Amino acid sequence: MRAGRADPFLNLPSLPSSPNPMAMTQPAPLPAAAWPDLAGRLVDGGHVLPVRVYYEDTDFSGVVYHASYLRFLERGRTDFLRLLGIGHAAMAAGAFGSARAFAVRTMTLDFRRPATIDDVLEVTTRRGDLSGARIVLDQTVTRKGEVLVTASVTVAVIDGAGRPCRLPAAIRERFG
Amino acid sequence: MRAGRADPFLNLPSLPSSPNPMAMTQPAPLPAAAWPDLAGRLVDGGHVLPVRVYYEDTDFSGVVYHASYLRFLERGRTDFLRLLGIGHAAMAAGAFGSARAFAVRTMTLDFRRPATIDDVLEVTTRRGDLSGARIVLDQTVTRKGEVLVTASVTVAVIDGAGRPCRLPAAIRERFG
Amino acid sequence: MRAGRADPFLNLPSLPSSPNPMAMTQPAPLPAAAWPDLAGRLVDGGHVLPVRVYYEDTDFSGVVYHASYLRFLERGRTDFLRLLGIGHAAMAAGAFGSARAFAVRTMTLDFRRPATIDDVLEVTTRRGDLSGARIVLDQTVTRKGEVLVTASVTVAVIDGAGRPCRLPAAIRERFG
Amino acid sequence: MRAGRADPFLNLPSLPSSPNPMAMTQPAPLPAAAWPDLAGRLVDGGHVLPVRVYYEDTDFSGVVYHASYLRFLERGRTDFLRLLGIGHAAMAAGAFGSARAFAVRTMTLDFRRPATIDDVLEVTTRRGDLSGARIVLDQTVTRKGEVLVTASVTVAVIDGAGRPCRLPAAIRERFG
Repeated sequence: MRAGRADPFLNLPSLPSSPNPMAMTQPAPLPAAAWPDLAGRLVDGGHVLPVRVYYEDTDFSGVVYHASYLRFLERGRTDFLRLLGIGHAAMAAGAFGSARAFAVRTMTLDFRRPATIDDVLEVTTRRGDLSGARIVLDQTVTRKGEVLVTASVTVAVIDGAGRPCRLPAAIRERFG
Repeated sequence: MRAGRADPFLNLPSLPSSPNPMAMTQPAPLPAAAWPDLAGRLVDGGHVLPVRVYYEDTDFSGVVYHASYLRFLERGRTDFLRLLGIGHAAMAAGAFGSARAFAVRTMTLDFRRPATIDDVLEVTTRRGDLSGARIVLDQTVTRKGEVLVTASVTVAVIDGAGRPCRLPAAIRERFG
Repeated sequence: MRAGRADPFLNLPSLPSSPNPMAMTQPAPLPAAAWPDLAGRLVDGGHVLPVRVYYEDTDFSGVVYHASYLRFLERGRTDFLRLLGIGHAAMAAGAFGSARAFAVRTMTLDFRRPATIDDVLEVTTRRGDLSGARIVLDQTVTRKGEVLVTASVTVAVIDGAGRPCRLPAAIRERFG
Repeated sequence: MRAGRADPFLNLPSLPSSPNPMAMTQPAPLPAAAWPDLAGRLVDGGHVLPVRVYYEDTDFSGVVYHASYLRFLERGRTDFLRLLGIGHAAMAAGAFGSARAFAVRTMTLDFRRPATIDDVLEVTTRRGDLSGARIVLDQTVTRKGEVLVTASVTVAVIDGAGRPCRLPAAIRERFG
């Protein structure tokens, strides 16, 4: 279930804006700060994103749950695209012709060593083969340079109806 | 990133339907079976849904991660609504006038005892107060009758633009 | 962060058992029911588990998030093992000699078609190759018999220190 | 199921270190970089952590799934503690006397407005009441200063058996 409601929300007397008395005691939020590295960094031929391991990523065996790495890998792909100027929201809104999105088609994963709570990991993403409708991205998750997980991910571009499309030229160019 | 693609997917010669050689070795799927209790059961004045604790729900402290209970609770609310004839997909498609959805507005949670891997839990959901635009749902997560978590959840009905709406009469009636 | 506390919790006057006034209004939990199909069913040469798609499994593109399938696949593997008499908790507790666990070593995934909210999926798991320390499991996610996702998963048995072990004979036998 | 295996992993000839041919094609990982703001920042009387909204955090309604905020809130609490010198791993290892952990006991949540894909959110955490065995943390999730979610979270300190404990003096001092 989604959370919250959209703006505006002004004229509904039966729904006061702070129905929860607890909310009254909340401190004023801090002013928004600048976070220069939030999307990681472009590096020679690719991109690197730091990822912290939190409780949510672990399981009762004491280490990171295997599916959590897929979330880390996607954050890396997303921020690589972001720094190339290819935003998910912009793609959906038609910035590259008409509505477009990326869909994962295949993945091959090799889990070599486990990560644990509080670890700082780095997700490195590099472009592999690029065909008419698909991009292969080669990714690693490392900790202080040691490889924990490798992945090869094939993504396709799809239209608003979910049908595969040719890669828009502008996207192809940004991948060099 | 979404997975897979929509139907149909017939006329793209460069994208064979099984590009992954591994897929060739997959066994034929089994025929779809009937699962009578998959959405739990309506009981006197409410609904009960069984939930198994899997690896995905635990964290490195050895027990269930606190936010996992919110997923369990929502499964219970969703299946309560389902058995009352109020499906999320149908609501979004306009089955109750025009596009409608439920949004969580407030939650109060009391975590009393932990659950662990392999546990079978039961999520019980009962209707609390019902006002013009909101429904309160009182929920418990139990294990063999012992209460582990209690929750009081206020949900609002919103329209396609995210604005709060009056409860459709048909929904109000189904809640009795 | 874990939720709740362990038993017993009797002798701490400063921590009343229901510190949250909301909790007072919770209805008594329903008696525990029997859920015969909760772990799916063994079928000829394998196992099938039904999985409902909930809000938690979807993403803003409108369909199931790709990593959610890994959670579904693991539920299938876990319940296959469960019905073969190989429980995660029991393995960890030394039921097969000393502490043992399964760890995912490699996965190959093919995402063919998307699933959506409210879908009932079936996860089918069959044993593939079995070597000294590894088991290959071939899995599919289907909807009414249509294949959405295929996966080949290699799992290894590890000891309490995370080191790979020979498959215990009792586990090997149960896999036939 | 956990992923990967622990070190060392040297003497098992049947388990080569890169059994997956795909792995051969992986590029060398990049050298570990410095990420100064990864744990957010201490600010007057509290802590602020930036959080990016990714696909994994959204649901099919198009906005952030309500339970995702609990993950964001915990990241904020965890990094607040981290910058105060109170690490989860260190607590578990006995840095404050003997094994200690934090457990969530109660939460009150008010979901006011939705967040969407690509948003940059800020999780602000401030200390509320501090009693013998409990700490109240007041948290907000904001976007460019606008409050989306408020939460009041009571956490307890527990020992290795899950029993509640007095707050260690060293932890109490760090919270000022």
